[in-house]
Amino acid sequence: MHTASLIAIGTELLFGQVVNTNAAYISERLQLLGVSVLYHFTVGDNPGRIKETLERAAEESEIVITTGGLGPTQDDLTKELIAELAGRKLIHDEEAHRRLDEIMRSFGRKNYTENNLKQTMLPEGAEAFYNEAGTAPGFALETGKNTFIALPGPPREMKEMMKRSVIPYLARKSDAVIFSKVLRFYGIGESALETVLLPIIDGQTDPTVATYAKEGECAIRISSMRRTEEEAVAAVETACARARELAGEHLYNEEDKDFPQVIVELLKEKGLTLCAAESCTGGLFSGAITSVPGASDVFDRAFVVYCNKAKTESLGVLAETLEEYGAVSEPCAREMAFGALERSNADIAVAVTGIAGPGGGTDEKPVGMACFAVAGRDGACVTRERKFRDRGRRVNRHVNTLEMCSMVREFLIDS
Amino acid sequence: MHTASLIAIGTELLFGQVVNTNAAYISERLQLLGVSVLYHFTVGDNPGRIKETLERAAEESEIVITTGGLGPTQDDLTKELIAELAGRKLIHDEEAHRRLDEIMRSFGRKNYTENNLKQTMLPEGAEAFYNEAGTAPGFALETGKNTFIALPGPPREMKEMMKRSVIPYLARKSDAVIFSKVLRFYGIGESALETVLLPIIDGQTDPTVATYAKEGECAIRISSMRRTEEEAVAAVETACARARELAGEHLYNEEDKDFPQVIVELLKEKGLTLCAAESCTGGLFSGAITSVPGASDVFDRAFVVYCNKAKTESLGVLAETLEEYGAVSEPCAREMAFGALERSNADIAVAVTGIAGPGGGTDEKPVGMACFAVAGRDGACVTRERKFRDRGRRVNRHVNTLEMCSMVREFLIDS
Repeated sequence: MHTASLIAIGTELLFGQVVNTNAAYISERLQLLGVSVLYHFTVGDNPGRIKETLERAAEESEIVITTGGLGPTQDDLTKELIAELAGRKLIHDEEAHRRLDEIMRSFGRKNYTENNLKQTMLPEGAEAFYNEAGTAPGFALETGKNTFIALPGPPREMKEMMKRSVIPYLARKSDAVIFSKVLRFYGIGESALETVLLPIIDGQTDPTVATYAKEGECAIRISSMRRTEEEAVAAVETACARARELAGEHLYNEEDKDFPQVIVELLKEKGLTLCAAESCTGGLFSGAITSVPGASDVFDRAFVVYCNKAKTESLGVLAETLEEYGAVSEPCAREMAFGALERSNADIAVAVTGIAGPGGGTDEKPVGMACFAVAGRDGACVTRERKFRDRGRRVNRHVNTLEMCSMVREFLIDS
Repeated sequence: MHTASLIAIGTELLFGQVVNTNAAYISERLQLLGVSVLYHFTVGDNPGRIKETLERAAEESEIVITTGGLGPTQDDLTKELIAELAGRKLIHDEEAHRRLDEIMRSFGRKNYTENNLKQTMLPEGAEAFYNEAGTAPGFALETGKNTFIALPGPPREMKEMMKRSVIPYLARKSDAVIFSKVLRFYGIGESALETVLLPIIDGQTDPTVATYAKEGECAIRISSMRRTEEEAVAAVETACARARELAGEHLYNEEDKDFPQVIVELLKEKGLTLCAAESCTGGLFSGAITSVPGASDVFDRAFVVYCNKAKTESLGVLAETLEEYGAVSEPCAREMAFGALERSNADIAVAVTGIAGPGGGTDEKPVGMACFAVAGRDGACVTRERKFRDRGRRVNRHVNTLEMCSMVREFLIDS
């Protein structure tokens, strides 16, 4: 088992101006490679403290991964200090220079300063990791005892470099290929999912199955590290098929796509359009669906009807229905859905009405309760009442949005 | 100047399952106390490595703050290891026991195990910080050379304890009182704001002014540490008045409230109601406003009209307007706003129509452009065209939502 320590470099982190999200991202990816992370360090742009931390990390673990401090300014010292520690010179990298030229030209800057050229220098003997999302290249440097890996600080650049360069590099070092898949689940908690999937989690060394709780849903990552890609893919697919058998009813996507993406794709596939009638979610469902580029092809419109009057006036919900069953009821949700269909050109309508809290709850209709409906032009309609546990207004509304997504997905699959 | 190092303890952090947001939160607060943070460390639930890290942190800095590892399980070792390092026994804390009893009774559990009682033990001579949001108490322990502060890992518990106990404790240690205020700005970038506020930033030691960039807006925190509260408040208020003079046109709140809160409060204050007509934001504005508890009193309804047909059918936008000016135009936004007023009971309507991207942009109407309107029942109407820089679909839509908020706020203040 390899060991690693991570060092985040940058005074802005110590000021608390930026949260270090890089450490969790890199740690999770290293896990999949069978690398055990022992420490995260964060240190400012201070040469003495950076050097001391590099030394300590190199003593404690085999692999040392830094983020930050690769830029063009005087403050950016990571490369220089790693080279010094490894007893290497910094030398000019042709390809890094060519790439910098290209980027600068695209910005319309022909001449740039000495500072910028700093970014074209790498420690002698290092393997360059070119930056596909920024200007500063990263690198890996083997010293016999340690592997130093230097990555840029901005998360977008770091992630690109992890995917394109670092993971393949580390897999190659162990003569292996990594393949992984993220499966997303709804309607089951993380610990329940873990229990159900025990046959593929317990005692497994490859493929590994890790569970992740997201707000109101959860996900698993199935990963395999094998000698060939075919073997890794086959191992993951076998575990994936088993996960489908064990928890298929809760599985909504096998490509790490979220509900809005899944729904927009399903609608496109089926050539159908959607509209929404939202009460307690107040526009969040529509906001989520329209976050997907191209949603305009399949999302017709929405009615945010917060008060009873709006439900009646904008969607034709009957006053009798509100009186007899109340606004938070399946009959009201049903009328909202059909009212939205009548007032739009959509093929399918989804509606929600519920109690987001903190006020407004009763014993019979507590905060967290919501009623849902999905309806089609042929008159088909599914309604559902859910009493979700109250987890605060924000989470309650998010959970309602997920339930709407889940119901639309089921309706589309069945239609 | 005092120095501090933070240690986050928990194997879940090294697995990358949890992002360490505590370090940034604590660091920012320490800054305000004039404490300089030198290192963040993260270490798993491993006694050897925790001890080594505690020793190193105590060597490098005066104050050592840990988060995590205070719970009832065998894994939770923070307290034991700090006591060991400081050469103190763990002793039973009456008040901690009383509080645990109370919590357990409220959960209906009369008897609890030895494990739970572990949470009532504190190092001899420590000052207890009782947990107002959970069960595990924290503490401060002075050893002569160092101050060890142990806080619970869950952010909600940690933040409560920072506010109630740690900040007053550290301020008291320096015989001081801290007062601070957060001012929120819109329509000015962080570096422009810094430049404008230079007279109260440059060379100031107290009050200090720190700027923070949020997405599409920014904020400053003005803090003062003085011997009495009156002095601290007076110092902050003086700087605040100066900030108002220098950048008042961009200042929208002085109590760290976000736009939706500000708008809901203004509407309540004026006894007015609002409705919205959203195209490119697709429901995000309504979702934001209705995130405020009690928004139902002032938010009438919204029309999410994504396609041209919906704009015409649901809001009565004229076909000629769409033909002559296009959907992304001030005349269209204006008709959307008045259409929404006609079809609702609201006093004020806000409308947006724009190009969120990534597709759909032209030279004349590039991605990032949007047109806005706010209208009242007396026929008053303000429209605005903005060509925001394209920062990707998600950010573009968020920026449009902020602009809608800003326009509604202005309209309400003027009305």
